[in-house]
Amino acid sequence: MNHMPYPHASLKALPDQLIDSFFAYQRLHHIGSGFMPTRQEIYRITDELFTLLFPGFYGRQDLSRENVTEHIRRKTNNLYERLYLQIFHCFNCRRSQSNQAEKKASQTAEKFMLSLLRIRESLADDILSAYQGDPAASGTDEIIFSYPATLAIGTYRLANALWKLGVPLMPRIMTEYAHSRTGIDIHPGATIGRGFFIDHGTGVVIGETTIIGDNCKLYQGVTLGAISFPHDDSGLIVRKTKRHPTLEDDVTVYSNASILGNIIIGKGSTVGGGVFLTRAIPPGCTVTTKSIELKYRKQCDVFAPSVVSDFQI
Amino acid sequence: MNHMPYPHASLKALPDQLIDSFFAYQRLHHIGSGFMPTRQEIYRITDELFTLLFPGFYGRQDLSRENVTEHIRRKTNNLYERLYLQIFHCFNCRRSQSNQAEKKASQTAEKFMLSLLRIRESLADDILSAYQGDPAASGTDEIIFSYPATLAIGTYRLANALWKLGVPLMPRIMTEYAHSRTGIDIHPGATIGRGFFIDHGTGVVIGETTIIGDNCKLYQGVTLGAISFPHDDSGLIVRKTKRHPTLEDDVTVYSNASILGNIIIGKGSTVGGGVFLTRAIPPGCTVTTKSIELKYRKQCDVFAPSVVSDFQI
Amino acid sequence: MNHMPYPHASLKALPDQLIDSFFAYQRLHHIGSGFMPTRQEIYRITDELFTLLFPGFYGRQDLSRENVTEHIRRKTNNLYERLYLQIFHCFNCRRSQSNQAEKKASQTAEKFMLSLLRIRESLADDILSAYQGDPAASGTDEIIFSYPATLAIGTYRLANALWKLGVPLMPRIMTEYAHSRTGIDIHPGATIGRGFFIDHGTGVVIGETTIIGDNCKLYQGVTLGAISFPHDDSGLIVRKTKRHPTLEDDVTVYSNASILGNIIIGKGSTVGGGVFLTRAIPPGCTVTTKSIELKYRKQCDVFAPSVVSDFQI
Repeated sequence: MNHMPYPHASLKALPDQLIDSFFAYQRLHHIGSGFMPTRQEIYRITDELFTLLFPGFYGRQDLSRENVTEHIRRKTNNLYERLYLQIFHCFNCRRSQSNQAEKKASQTAEKFMLSLLRIRESLADDILSAYQGDPAASGTDEIIFSYPATLAIGTYRLANALWKLGVPLMPRIMTEYAHSRTGIDIHPGATIGRGFFIDHGTGVVIGETTIIGDNCKLYQGVTLGAISFPHDDSGLIVRKTKRHPTLEDDVTVYSNASILGNIIIGKGSTVGGGVFLTRAIPPGCTVTTKSIELKYRKQCDVFAPSVVSDFQI
Repeated sequence: MNHMPYPHASLKALPDQLIDSFFAYQRLHHIGSGFMPTRQEIYRITDELFTLLFPGFYGRQDLSRENVTEHIRRKTNNLYERLYLQIFHCFNCRRSQSNQAEKKASQTAEKFMLSLLRIRESLADDILSAYQGDPAASGTDEIIFSYPATLAIGTYRLANALWKLGVPLMPRIMTEYAHSRTGIDIHPGATIGRGFFIDHGTGVVIGETTIIGDNCKLYQGVTLGAISFPHDDSGLIVRKTKRHPTLEDDVTVYSNASILGNIIIGKGSTVGGGVFLTRAIPPGCTVTTKSIELKYRKQCDVFAPSVVSDFQI
Repeated sequence: MNHMPYPHASLKALPDQLIDSFFAYQRLHHIGSGFMPTRQEIYRITDELFTLLFPGFYGRQDLSRENVTEHIRRKTNNLYERLYLQIFHCFNCRRSQSNQAEKKASQTAEKFMLSLLRIRESLADDILSAYQGDPAASGTDEIIFSYPATLAIGTYRLANALWKLGVPLMPRIMTEYAHSRTGIDIHPGATIGRGFFIDHGTGVVIGETTIIGDNCKLYQGVTLGAISFPHDDSGLIVRKTKRHPTLEDDVTVYSNASILGNIIIGKGSTVGGGVFLTRAIPPGCTVTTKSIELKYRKQCDVFAPSVVSDFQI
């Protein structure tokens, strides 16, 4: 059926034109330079780290007290080696050159692996908060297997450990992998306390300099964002300043609320659904939107064909 | 280039520390217990069920009236067996122990497979509603191939059938798989009528006890959620009460509207974009937000450098 | 453990019932007709086109000035042939029959491949706009590796080239693939100028007839949508009319704003977060929501157990 037509003459020149185009835009290629980290391998490493965080849920099913030691020994060695290589490339690729990248990568991979113990402790609290906070949860198994919060917060905690160790690129690749799968965008530079839960989660944005205390809860569509960016004298954007909110302990933010700027939401406060907030809130407060007046109109349509009038319910 | 550094001494102790950590948090591991269901296998089964829902679109391309019978016979047998195994694990894993799990799993898998006929009938209506409701749709092929609604609603209808048969874990794993790929979060316990369409869909949340009639349409960012959760005397959250809205037939909800609580939206009503609704609406109504006053300010910038003043359009 | 129960008698009839069901709903199957395009293959082609857009970031790592020519020659030939086949099926499948589909597909695939040069030029501007517009960006490597905007806008620019060449189905399959991975839903028919950036992006919707000028920036949750659809005399929805907004050059739209209908947002204007806009805006304007009054209530809870009163901050 499909006789493959002979490539068109015009296509003969395309490879050379493409290569000229590669070298015309230096920032869009990595040709003839140090290897870049491999995005797919970082995705796989993230997935396999979850088999250490939640053994028996992810990865090998037949783990028992007899075989678990040998399995975990192999898995940790394997992950250490693969992490080392990706971290090395992150330190050593063209635009992130670093002296002694090998030594630095090896020490960083070591410190990261040891941090898994602390990360598991945090996640135990996170899972419990999810169970206590969601009436639809049938149990913690369901939360571990299916809740986007588990994936997004777990990946954030892994990426944040690498971020604090100064690894370029990789932390953000990991959190954007979780963002892609959950709709929850947590910057690896954010600081998040224990017992954190995000319900549903699609559309949540947590900016780089956000600080979140213990036992906080967010719903879908919540933005913890910046309100404006300072520019320097030459008009360039200033990076790394604290420009996102701080949530103290026990704060709840309901769906689609936006909290913008370097402001403090006091301990135990609640921000209602849809609230657009750019001012600080003291502790123990509930902030809701004053009801927006709604307009009700009886429709003239197939379902109510003869009644056309304004009315109040 | 990359001499793999010898594993650090500190890593030697990590496997045993991790294993101690596993057994310190009972809820975060499944070691030495009955097998859990396998998330990836449930994802694959879901994908393959779509080849029965939309044959020729997904899966094998060369189906004809001659070979389709043999192909479908094999595919249904294969899927029955794999569903049986996952359902068995869902009934039988540690925290969901069930007597006679084998018999129950076998009968459940059978009933589920037979329900595919009814699910196809529903999807035929859903696809038609999508075509009738979206002016950008070039045809039903495009809807089946590319619309997130097809994936999200199709997966919901499969998962809801398993939910009604009492299968733990698996229905939620399936709908969260669709949530991950579409941004549409439909709880498998929701009740949804025929001819349902969700346009764009990212950020849609449909809670566990939501009821939706026939021929309803939602846009992106719509929440059908709960407004508060009752707690029992000991302060624990009460589960399974009806806490989400009921939409009667022919209701349309525009983008980013939130409808919260156990309230009824009457037949044929329309809820406007961005409306935040916690009160019932009678049939045949249109509810919109009273226009929020906007502030217009002429900017002093490169595009209008000399004009700085308040003005009204 | 798991004795596979013998298939139930009721399942014996299922294959034939399913096949009856297939032929009862003509639009839900492609059996015995021309091959459909293959969604998974279109996904893979999209991924591989990114290795031509950003060589060394995606795909083969060890590219050098010595081996790049041979690699790109093979890759372009391979992609041309695979594109040809999918485009052929798009032109030739049952409900999109086209005369001379082979010739048309071959010419279309050729034109598309040649358009890659122009698409790379556009993407160079897009990446630069992202770096200039986001204070959290550590560099363009991070943007290429991890920003959803790179994936969504890159895929849109590929799909838009196919859309302008008149290819059915495939452009939408490509943009919905990006939508699935980023939460950003850009219709391939939209017209988008240079230097375009979307930050975070989850929930963004850009409709089919939207026009966006140069150097525009959107944040998460922005809808550029239609406000109503005309219907013809027989009650059918009218397709293809201009029903979405036009953004002139240098427009910024902050998070969760909705701009609906065929209206013009003038050059250099800014639309604030959460604004719901259905009227045109002249050039050089800032439009924000007049602050919605918030209600503050001191909570009576564990954190502030004895103070229950209304108060103003």
